[in-house]
Amino acid sequence: MTTYILTIQCPDAPGLVNRVTGALLEVGANITEAAQFTDPDTRIFAQRIVFDSPASLAEARAALDPVSEAVGGTFTLRPRDARRRVLIMASREEHCLLDLLFRHRNGELDIDIPLIISNHEERADLAHRYGIPFEHVPVTPETKTAAEKILLERVERLGIDFVVLARYMQILSSEVCHALEGRIINIHHSFLPGFKGARPYHQAHARGVKLIGATAHYVTTDLDEGPIIEQDVVRVDHADSVEDMVRLGRDVERLVLSRAVRYQAEDRVILLGSKTVVFS
Amino acid sequence: MTTYILTIQCPDAPGLVNRVTGALLEVGANITEAAQFTDPDTRIFAQRIVFDSPASLAEARAALDPVSEAVGGTFTLRPRDARRRVLIMASREEHCLLDLLFRHRNGELDIDIPLIISNHEERADLAHRYGIPFEHVPVTPETKTAAEKILLERVERLGIDFVVLARYMQILSSEVCHALEGRIINIHHSFLPGFKGARPYHQAHARGVKLIGATAHYVTTDLDEGPIIEQDVVRVDHADSVEDMVRLGRDVERLVLSRAVRYQAEDRVILLGSKTVVFS
Amino acid sequence: MTTYILTIQCPDAPGLVNRVTGALLEVGANITEAAQFTDPDTRIFAQRIVFDSPASLAEARAALDPVSEAVGGTFTLRPRDARRRVLIMASREEHCLLDLLFRHRNGELDIDIPLIISNHEERADLAHRYGIPFEHVPVTPETKTAAEKILLERVERLGIDFVVLARYMQILSSEVCHALEGRIINIHHSFLPGFKGARPYHQAHARGVKLIGATAHYVTTDLDEGPIIEQDVVRVDHADSVEDMVRLGRDVERLVLSRAVRYQAEDRVILLGSKTVVFS
Amino acid sequence: MTTYILTIQCPDAPGLVNRVTGALLEVGANITEAAQFTDPDTRIFAQRIVFDSPASLAEARAALDPVSEAVGGTFTLRPRDARRRVLIMASREEHCLLDLLFRHRNGELDIDIPLIISNHEERADLAHRYGIPFEHVPVTPETKTAAEKILLERVERLGIDFVVLARYMQILSSEVCHALEGRIINIHHSFLPGFKGARPYHQAHARGVKLIGATAHYVTTDLDEGPIIEQDVVRVDHADSVEDMVRLGRDVERLVLSRAVRYQAEDRVILLGSKTVVFS
Repeated sequence: MTTYILTIQCPDAPGLVNRVTGALLEVGANITEAAQFTDPDTRIFAQRIVFDSPASLAEARAALDPVSEAVGGTFTLRPRDARRRVLIMASREEHCLLDLLFRHRNGELDIDIPLIISNHEERADLAHRYGIPFEHVPVTPETKTAAEKILLERVERLGIDFVVLARYMQILSSEVCHALEGRIINIHHSFLPGFKGARPYHQAHARGVKLIGATAHYVTTDLDEGPIIEQDVVRVDHADSVEDMVRLGRDVERLVLSRAVRYQAEDRVILLGSKTVVFS
Repeated sequence: MTTYILTIQCPDAPGLVNRVTGALLEVGANITEAAQFTDPDTRIFAQRIVFDSPASLAEARAALDPVSEAVGGTFTLRPRDARRRVLIMASREEHCLLDLLFRHRNGELDIDIPLIISNHEERADLAHRYGIPFEHVPVTPETKTAAEKILLERVERLGIDFVVLARYMQILSSEVCHALEGRIINIHHSFLPGFKGARPYHQAHARGVKLIGATAHYVTTDLDEGPIIEQDVVRVDHADSVEDMVRLGRDVERLVLSRAVRYQAEDRVILLGSKTVVFS
Repeated sequence: MTTYILTIQCPDAPGLVNRVTGALLEVGANITEAAQFTDPDTRIFAQRIVFDSPASLAEARAALDPVSEAVGGTFTLRPRDARRRVLIMASREEHCLLDLLFRHRNGELDIDIPLIISNHEERADLAHRYGIPFEHVPVTPETKTAAEKILLERVERLGIDFVVLARYMQILSSEVCHALEGRIINIHHSFLPGFKGARPYHQAHARGVKLIGATAHYVTTDLDEGPIIEQDVVRVDHADSVEDMVRLGRDVERLVLSRAVRYQAEDRVILLGSKTVVFS
Repeated sequence: MTTYILTIQCPDAPGLVNRVTGALLEVGANITEAAQFTDPDTRIFAQRIVFDSPASLAEARAALDPVSEAVGGTFTLRPRDARRRVLIMASREEHCLLDLLFRHRNGELDIDIPLIISNHEERADLAHRYGIPFEHVPVTPETKTAAEKILLERVERLGIDFVVLARYMQILSSEVCHALEGRIINIHHSFLPGFKGARPYHQAHARGVKLIGATAHYVTTDLDEGPIIEQDVVRVDHADSVEDMVRLGRDVERLVLSRAVRYQAEDRVILLGSKTVVFS
């Protein structure tokens, strides 16, 4: 028996679930998890199904392909064991990177991490401790284009499913944003849409907000405007300095990013235009 | 077109969802919401489906009954417009009662409230303001049995679907608990299983906890041990007196109870043994 | 014995607390609560002290005045029993108004409410239920100036300490904002600085945020930019419609506003430039 | 200039703060933080003051000692730079240990860690990565007494201020509990007083609670009954298995423990009988 994860995205139509479950029945599937949502504005149907089946991947696909074609949808299907391959990028701050590596070793994050790239050589140490290949790719105005080329080449060569910017503080070119659309996740250290751009904790401190937050979102060419995957906040007060906010914010950042990575790794996120459906 | 709410509870079996959706297809149903869960311990399958259909209730039932029989399950089906009929019981504290009445008038709680019963005559005023029939049923050791008889008679005569104890501070006999099993919800002013029984805020203050909470649960003969529907908490500190906790707790109590009532009113709660599945 | 609330705001200086407590000692004061904060940027010292004393208000003032003059500060002193007088303004949505009135009757809000003003005549009903004088002041482009004149006249005549906009959906002129600076609190139904202006829940829904919030702030001429007193949030997901957000948001709005009103009523808020110190 | 942290615990009396601030004035102190609380039940006064002064520790003590004696109180005074010395004990689970070590290196925890003791040799690796001395002290029924003797000897010899049980899953003897009273902090993986003892997540799963939590508390001879320092919770639902709860709980455990350690390290916790005052 193999456990499969199936995601579906298509225009809503009567009988959709019946057709899908009919196809699954053909391959002797036992559904263990299922969640669905129909967007009332666009009438797009989104579904995530986890099922056990004695069928091979090819057999399962053969059963589902006719449904997919008939409904004009985007189906993804994979054995749960075929783990998502994730490339992590990090800069100076290491808390998000450490958190992901710890959860990975711990079994919380069901992913493979073929590579960590950082513009800071010191991050090599952490990568090595956790046994993950590391590449130092410095970024200067002159080398930026070359650095991005390296990134895209690694994504291609290593069969990367998605990229995680674990407090990677470089703005990516629109070429990279487009090439990795829906496959690159950033953590921004504010509760978006508040405090976009640089130094959000300084902005938050200046504005005197009573909660600070973090936002995990897909990267798009519009800075800090990509579809939001997850957010959370923590309470602060007048006595908290910018440094206190940085400290408190770190905990929110790593929690929010690790949830987003887990959702993405388990095919729980479906991108609908500028918003996400998250079957958490 | 009628909007229906269907709930299903049965032993898990392959093809279950396909059979159900097949039956729905027969009556031209368009599924707008669906959530399901299979309990790994008991292998019980629970599902909640909202669908639109041109079929009458009788026609929809006729399509679903064979499935229900075949799988040996408990199915409930009703038009969403056939709102749940709720009897509310209240005592001295009125915040939970007021909250439910306000949400009801507001359109947040899709229920009918044919009657409010209280052992405190002063609650009549609030009931009248919101145009709800009110009955004063005093409870003393001598009249307790008679009072419970009145409750059960009203439930029967008014076709009550479920009873809400909105801070009704009387312990019900095991007869009433059994008669209304799975149909009577209480709000307890602690984060159960901590601080069962009387004066939970005093207990919490004495213990020095840093959060206090409230729990909405089904009433069973085991005091404060019934299946939990919803819980929440709020932060307190050393400077909070018992009175502060009572004040802070009120907000949690009314939030938690109103959520539980909404879940129950929308058929979102499925009772599995001593636990609940809540399709929130 | 009288219980007094003292607040202090002045440039920080060595010996400040010693001088203040020395003056209090002169009037036989027993301090029951004290909180203080020195803003590291401006070196402004802020303090709130609650004390019991056999002295009269005049005697207590006589003891404190020399300190106040010496340090060049702003001191406020009042017996706790001299409750703050609050004018509430409301529009169509009544949840915040109801919440304040319920808490007031309940003893949670230690204030007097000499008047409720609304541009909606239907709010009279709620005011009368809670025994509060009500005035219907319609607002149209033509009557707006006259309406504001009425407001300021009432504030003056009734000795109002501060005004609460309990979802009063009218933008006030800069004259009113200036006249009531630091004495007028608004609840905005978003987590500011996100989603300023009109229809914040529609904005939140369009952006696909995963938490929505509410913000209580002082009103200034800069719309939704005034100093923040309190904020809170609640989780939403892709399945929540604008209407769901409105429903969930109501609970946050009333919690946040009632906390802000309580802080203000108990002299817990000290305005430092564009930010607040809240001794919660 | 030296920054000092002063804590005071004594019977409440008029003029107390004036006397303390008078003594501080003598040594040219500038108070930068101050928080106080009088327990209404016991009339015990607790205060924490941070001040800058050109005086030496001996001079500052000389100024404060007469006050301390006069009021019959317990005063602690130390330069903030004289960091608390903390011994950490860990077992199989490493998330709490890693979290403390990361925060320590990060500058979030202003402590020295002269030693980590574990009954699991594998923990040596983590200790070494962070450059902390490690000692493997196996615990079996036969060696338990000897192991505890080692602990107490190390506490003595290394001048340990307090001990942290970072998911150290051994029950300590009453001798150790008494010897380290008020100086040994445990993290229990439930929201106490719910689910004391073994396997709290299993208990929580069986009871069907909707939130799980963690509690940091002082260790006493009464298992899981010691004074609570900090607690927090996270939402779970019917679909969360025991394993999911363990995963979600880890985040709460490490947050709660790290906050408690920071409070203790910064002299923010004052033990009043079976409860704590936490000047957070």
